[in-house]
Amino acid sequence: MGTLPFVAELGLVDHHCHGVLRTDSTREEFESLLLEADAVAPLGGSFFDSAVGFAVRRWCAPLLDLPRHASAEEYLERRNSLHIAEVSRTFLMASGIHTFLVDGGFQADRLLSAAELASLGGGVAHEVVRLEALAESLRPSASAAEFVPAVRARLASSSAVGAKSVAAYRIGLGLPGERPADADVVRAVAAWSSGRLADPVVITWLAWEALSAGLPLQFHVGYGDSDLDLHLCDPSLLTPFLRATASLGVPVLLLHNYPFHRQAGYLAQVFPHVFCDLGLATHGLGHQASRVFAEALEIVPYGKFLFSTDAFALPELYYLGALMFRRALSDFLSDGLRRDAFVEEDAHRIARLIASENAARVYKL
Amino acid sequence: MGTLPFVAELGLVDHHCHGVLRTDSTREEFESLLLEADAVAPLGGSFFDSAVGFAVRRWCAPLLDLPRHASAEEYLERRNSLHIAEVSRTFLMASGIHTFLVDGGFQADRLLSAAELASLGGGVAHEVVRLEALAESLRPSASAAEFVPAVRARLASSSAVGAKSVAAYRIGLGLPGERPADADVVRAVAAWSSGRLADPVVITWLAWEALSAGLPLQFHVGYGDSDLDLHLCDPSLLTPFLRATASLGVPVLLLHNYPFHRQAGYLAQVFPHVFCDLGLATHGLGHQASRVFAEALEIVPYGKFLFSTDAFALPELYYLGALMFRRALSDFLSDGLRRDAFVEEDAHRIARLIASENAARVYKL
Amino acid sequence: MGTLPFVAELGLVDHHCHGVLRTDSTREEFESLLLEADAVAPLGGSFFDSAVGFAVRRWCAPLLDLPRHASAEEYLERRNSLHIAEVSRTFLMASGIHTFLVDGGFQADRLLSAAELASLGGGVAHEVVRLEALAESLRPSASAAEFVPAVRARLASSSAVGAKSVAAYRIGLGLPGERPADADVVRAVAAWSSGRLADPVVITWLAWEALSAGLPLQFHVGYGDSDLDLHLCDPSLLTPFLRATASLGVPVLLLHNYPFHRQAGYLAQVFPHVFCDLGLATHGLGHQASRVFAEALEIVPYGKFLFSTDAFALPELYYLGALMFRRALSDFLSDGLRRDAFVEEDAHRIARLIASENAARVYKL
Repeated sequence: MGTLPFVAELGLVDHHCHGVLRTDSTREEFESLLLEADAVAPLGGSFFDSAVGFAVRRWCAPLLDLPRHASAEEYLERRNSLHIAEVSRTFLMASGIHTFLVDGGFQADRLLSAAELASLGGGVAHEVVRLEALAESLRPSASAAEFVPAVRARLASSSAVGAKSVAAYRIGLGLPGERPADADVVRAVAAWSSGRLADPVVITWLAWEALSAGLPLQFHVGYGDSDLDLHLCDPSLLTPFLRATASLGVPVLLLHNYPFHRQAGYLAQVFPHVFCDLGLATHGLGHQASRVFAEALEIVPYGKFLFSTDAFALPELYYLGALMFRRALSDFLSDGLRRDAFVEEDAHRIARLIASENAARVYKL
Repeated sequence: MGTLPFVAELGLVDHHCHGVLRTDSTREEFESLLLEADAVAPLGGSFFDSAVGFAVRRWCAPLLDLPRHASAEEYLERRNSLHIAEVSRTFLMASGIHTFLVDGGFQADRLLSAAELASLGGGVAHEVVRLEALAESLRPSASAAEFVPAVRARLASSSAVGAKSVAAYRIGLGLPGERPADADVVRAVAAWSSGRLADPVVITWLAWEALSAGLPLQFHVGYGDSDLDLHLCDPSLLTPFLRATASLGVPVLLLHNYPFHRQAGYLAQVFPHVFCDLGLATHGLGHQASRVFAEALEIVPYGKFLFSTDAFALPELYYLGALMFRRALSDFLSDGLRRDAFVEEDAHRIARLIASENAARVYKL
Repeated sequence: MGTLPFVAELGLVDHHCHGVLRTDSTREEFESLLLEADAVAPLGGSFFDSAVGFAVRRWCAPLLDLPRHASAEEYLERRNSLHIAEVSRTFLMASGIHTFLVDGGFQADRLLSAAELASLGGGVAHEVVRLEALAESLRPSASAAEFVPAVRARLASSSAVGAKSVAAYRIGLGLPGERPADADVVRAVAAWSSGRLADPVVITWLAWEALSAGLPLQFHVGYGDSDLDLHLCDPSLLTPFLRATASLGVPVLLLHNYPFHRQAGYLAQVFPHVFCDLGLATHGLGHQASRVFAEALEIVPYGKFLFSTDAFALPELYYLGALMFRRALSDFLSDGLRRDAFVEEDAHRIARLIASENAARVYKL
């Protein structure tokens, strides 16, 4: 179960991630950032007793000069004895990620910026603009009538390589199959005075605007925190939107997808502009990531699947996301080679496509 | 593929089961009780040709002094030549279950009571009160106005360690996120004169009342008999209810969950008061239980997963439920140890949590 | 990972397939027929870089006297240098299918008829009548009032061994639980003047009529092309229809089912008249078919599962569908034998049931 050498050495483009914390974490904060839970509770026990918790002890401890499987206490004590920037640099450098596509639109004040992250990780960073955050930042200073052109101007002049929608968290993924008319958008904006955007017309319109601006559009799909209703985050709910936007020819990227990764693979197969990844679920599944990774690759053409970590706040998650990805990809390719499903040259090509070439093509990096 | 010794020796708390039949079974009855089908039909062939049917022949036959893989005919002939109490004792004792949490609210007249079951199995039994059955038993003798306090009084004075809702069978799991007002409940009760309870207001209210009485609340989820519509039994439909009840701090337990076990694991991860199991699907999958068991443990913290059999009517199902659970848990732990995902001490702790300690904590046993 | 000899030698009944193309294919056409995508696009790369694409190079190339893993270019060049009838004969003969149940109601003019297919493949063919196509062919020449008896007469006098509904593509699988009244059907037909049938009353009525005529009824379920909304093709949406039709005792067959194959297995377990297969997904998953095949067999009784290819247009898909089925069935049986879940005699019986005996019983072949 070792990792194939050519997979271990792949340079990675992480097409969806976030910044890391500027500060140390308490045990409680660390545990709750490992998973998607709001908080740790005595009723349920420690989150170190989870797949990702064990992965921290097994894989991250040695990078902080601790033995494999160091206890949670030892790990956090050692971690907090070091400067957080040093900890972050260690894990980022070890990940082998050379290009970071960063969604900086969530809890930006607590986290390193994209540029800081890239500098620490010895790579290059590009920004992904979070549509709802952009809209929320523009609303207070724009009338409803000014809002539409203001968003358009910002997307047109943006240096971002892509956009991201968190419709899943706000209204679910059942976006309609028609582009909202400007007049309807203005009316909906007028009804939304400020604060958290949860209007379906505005959220749908933002997605269309991103595509019209030529920005590859990421959707959070599936597994996330308790803010979402999982059954409303099934990617196949996006079908009318995908059907309607196919002719634009701008990529749409389905993030995470667990436990709907098979549905995502279906959409990426049948719609020419749709792509998918396993994101968050890769490190979240720890030693069980390989099986789900193989499931995610069942029917998706290999030119349609990407690597990402969705790492947020804890630099360990970059390292674990990349590590578990390499192990899962290696297991997938080894299994195919053992079954004589493809030959070595094919395996190398699949690996390069998924690790970086698909992302480079989609985002024109 | 042997079972790890420390897993084979685990004492088990079965946190969800039913009584066993007082009588022998005909072949037709036996076959239909093996699965969730209403009846056996020539069109589909014998249910002995199924995963659980083969498991009976492989694993149960030797306990009745027959060779492994005895034929269905031999098995039933031998079984019916023995006293049913002796058969039940044999399988219950062999299960290694020391504590039974019994939902006695379904077909009680045909089945042994919780106390009889415990006595036969050499263990301890606790009652779980089935909410819809309680309501149906109280309705005939109570006016609509009397009904609300009558239910409350019964739950407050109950010796049960938990409550169970079969909302899945009656209205699906899309319970609203608000507690029904007493006046609405009285109105709904007035409209329900007697018989099978299928009113969404009353069923939702019962669930809230159980939690208010401090009773851990079990929900049937997923796979069951043909009375349910499977897509209405997706546990993520419970999200609004779970979000609304989190602050009560009383455990909610999602039973079975197949084929939504990944969704259940997600809910158990993000909500501090939510737990899950694989119940019925464990013996139902027979020799294939290990893969689904591993799937069920993908993202759930190990402090949030429990053992249960959901055994009903046939004592074989207690034995097979416990046996397949041990084999699946052993396979999961062996795989983790082989991958060096955790160490022996961790494996022992995970095993104890799932086998009994989580149940003891949740139900305050 | 070789195939068990008795599985390799099984004669197969393909209970759901289509004709093959009368002509050669361009590379673009060939690639798009391999998968369910509308077209190949540079953005996503070649479809030869997919599970089924690799399977063509690995398994089909040697039958055209090319080395294993020949390149896509070599493969297509060689294929087009031969007569298409010779290519088709080669793959059909190599599939080991002796009986073809052919849905000829889609793109009939491009494809060989059932009789031509059987002749080329050295087997026997039976027709399956595609209900929506039948209705669309009768509508232009019948008034609304004449339409109902015209459909009935055609179904009553049909030589077909079964019927097929593509409700999934037209209205989704949420058919109502009541048989539409004739008057409602006439009204709905009157509102549908001609062309593509997408009326829920008429489509539901067609399904009932097929069963009333005693025709086993196939439903497309799950995975297909971009015309469908995948979440509307969950077979559990059919539950009210299945509950209502159980007493008719006429088989209902759920086709493909991926990624809802576990839901399909549940329905086939609980309803005496329901059966399922993995169809299209078998060749679509290529070297990963065995895992999903095993999942599909988790809870379905072995008397309720059938073989099919859903092969369409490309004769390679017959061969790959049969080959991947044999490998997956062999893996399933080998695993069960290795775990001592059943004995050799049982394995032989399961294999015969799934390969042909279930189909013979269901369709009265």
